[in-house]
Amino acid sequence: MTGRRRTDTAVAVVGAGPAGLMLSHLLAREGIDSVVVDHRSRREIELTARAGILEADSVALLVDSGVSDRVLREGSVHEGIALRFGGASHRIDFRELVDATVTLYPQTDVFVDLADARERDGGDVRFDVADTEVVDVTGDRPGVLFTDAAGVECEVRARVVVGADGSRSTCRSLVPETLREQVVREYPYAWFGILCDAPPSAPELVYARSERGFALVSQRTASVQRLYFECDPDEDVDAWPDERIWAELQARVAGDDGFALREGPVTDKAVLRFRSSVCEPMRYGTLLLAGDAAHTVPPTGAKGLNLALADVRGLAEVVAAALGAGDLDILDRYAPRALERVWRAQHFSYWLTSLLHRTPGGSEFDARRQLAELRSVVASEAGRRYLAEGYTGRFAGL
Amino acid sequence: MTGRRRTDTAVAVVGAGPAGLMLSHLLAREGIDSVVVDHRSRREIELTARAGILEADSVALLVDSGVSDRVLREGSVHEGIALRFGGASHRIDFRELVDATVTLYPQTDVFVDLADARERDGGDVRFDVADTEVVDVTGDRPGVLFTDAAGVECEVRARVVVGADGSRSTCRSLVPETLREQVVREYPYAWFGILCDAPPSAPELVYARSERGFALVSQRTASVQRLYFECDPDEDVDAWPDERIWAELQARVAGDDGFALREGPVTDKAVLRFRSSVCEPMRYGTLLLAGDAAHTVPPTGAKGLNLALADVRGLAEVVAAALGAGDLDILDRYAPRALERVWRAQHFSYWLTSLLHRTPGGSEFDARRQLAELRSVVASEAGRRYLAEGYTGRFAGL
Repeated sequence: MTGRRRTDTAVAVVGAGPAGLMLSHLLAREGIDSVVVDHRSRREIELTARAGILEADSVALLVDSGVSDRVLREGSVHEGIALRFGGASHRIDFRELVDATVTLYPQTDVFVDLADARERDGGDVRFDVADTEVVDVTGDRPGVLFTDAAGVECEVRARVVVGADGSRSTCRSLVPETLREQVVREYPYAWFGILCDAPPSAPELVYARSERGFALVSQRTASVQRLYFECDPDEDVDAWPDERIWAELQARVAGDDGFALREGPVTDKAVLRFRSSVCEPMRYGTLLLAGDAAHTVPPTGAKGLNLALADVRGLAEVVAAALGAGDLDILDRYAPRALERVWRAQHFSYWLTSLLHRTPGGSEFDARRQLAELRSVVASEAGRRYLAEGYTGRFAGL
Repeated sequence: MTGRRRTDTAVAVVGAGPAGLMLSHLLAREGIDSVVVDHRSRREIELTARAGILEADSVALLVDSGVSDRVLREGSVHEGIALRFGGASHRIDFRELVDATVTLYPQTDVFVDLADARERDGGDVRFDVADTEVVDVTGDRPGVLFTDAAGVECEVRARVVVGADGSRSTCRSLVPETLREQVVREYPYAWFGILCDAPPSAPELVYARSERGFALVSQRTASVQRLYFECDPDEDVDAWPDERIWAELQARVAGDDGFALREGPVTDKAVLRFRSSVCEPMRYGTLLLAGDAAHTVPPTGAKGLNLALADVRGLAEVVAAALGAGDLDILDRYAPRALERVWRAQHFSYWLTSLLHRTPGGSEFDARRQLAELRSVVASEAGRRYLAEGYTGRFAGL
């Protein structure tokens, strides 16, 4: 390893997505140095369209920790969602039910805010690196080796390494298979997602259940909308010209309450597969996993980014405590707290998904039971509130 | 059909279980005559051990309609249940959550009260009949032909025939297959139920979820208890001597909170299979279906008897209105109202079942998600109240 340009730091972070950058930001506030590396360019991450619903706690983390208050100015506060079935919409009023809101603010904007904040604060973030290799995670000076954007071979040595490198995490694979348990649930459907140039059809997200399957009407800006509909995981995007997409979406949100889905040119379309997964342990030696590297959820509950931010909020505290005390055993406090939220959110995401999707080959009994469940939930203040607690991330007792 | 002893009445009821007898009782209060027939003897029905949890509305129906107030004296009011998992019990307090209670009062006692009331009030109930045949249900004078307990061939002619003849209903099969839709869900498990001579282990029902599967601790009297545990539908009862039964039950309710399951000699044991089913239409010509003849639920939610009583409460009103107006089209009002409750109860029963049972071959993800769901439900006032609404039959908006 001679000849490499060496940097010594406290925490090496693999992955410069929102989880990795937020962790680096929070550690800096505790006076703890870190280096973040990512094989993607900053531009590439900025162009990845992802989820856009932030829980109030996520918004507060961005603002209160000093990342940026842009979310307050440009984000769109949503005080509820609509569940749409049987030809009508039924509002779940978060403000009234749990005195909380969520904010529509795309993940790419969260990333931009975090990347800007790290740059502003002199953070060490290396985009566009190659040949990343994490080494010595069971030793007391673990490292990350990589070739930087300029082609220089680098070596970062730290006390702790954090894998925040997403659902296809390579850090995760450093946990020996004999110790690692990944519990997974696959779903028999995916989402067909589009961006279109059209005005918004509704002020808040509309989650629609129909005999043809689920559809989600969400917003992006005054002139760009994001819509989804349940599809086969192997669906061929090219088989869907604009008019077929709109016919399918219109059929899924049809009703007799005057709801009108506004159409416009489709500017992007893709099939988004998803699954539920949780990897344990979240700590192996000096390596810790956070965000999608440790767990993924279906997009239905909009929990992915929020869980990642909750992970690193807890992780920053634990890492600060461990390094402050010089006792790495303190790192063991991270996973149990993170996992309780993760599993609550896993259940919520699974529930909201199963409440709205049509299972291919599903029985008539399950379709009718699903409708009865929707009627029970929206008719009951308790049912609506239980759902609102999950959606806003206000899980009781956490 | 000459030679048969003919009786003319307004309503012929097939099945003298709680649904049929309660219907006959309620009709009599409206001044409407009925004849009830059942192939079983009164003694045989009395000896059939069945569910024992009455919703408050069911208790009120028994008392307010003048059947009997014995349920108030001998029934045991339960103000909640316990959900047990992770080695501890979590109470769902019905009184506090929905200001309602349920009453432990065996179905056989409901039957005895109803049979006594019909006898007291001069009702025409024929037990122990043979060769029952329902005829002419699409005509204006449908009939029930049978041989009575004394061997006399009888014919009852009516304006309306009600099939309250249980889950293996023959009346149901009179609805032509081309019109009939039976939506069904089978479960990959059954209940192993026992009666034992022992004092109660808890003042209220304990619904236990364990890695070994579901168990239910319920009560009967001060010295006789009813307990169940989830088993294979093909489980061999003879493979379960008392000590194996108790070992299994103890393992499923084990914990560190001092809960002690009291043991005693097992006096009865049986494997109880179940399924969810709903048959439509509930009306065909002059024939109407009620109770288990139209729908069955898993025993988990204790909804079967309560749904049957709710069915006939609505049915008595509709039949009285139809006969009073001389307009049988009014009978069409019965099913939509009944079915809304039925489907809400189907969902509730399915949910409570899936919340507590271990699916054979189920994934580790589902097992952990189930535990997270239980933690979410019991931690949340909204979750507990939503469950309490279903358990007590106080479905919102019904």
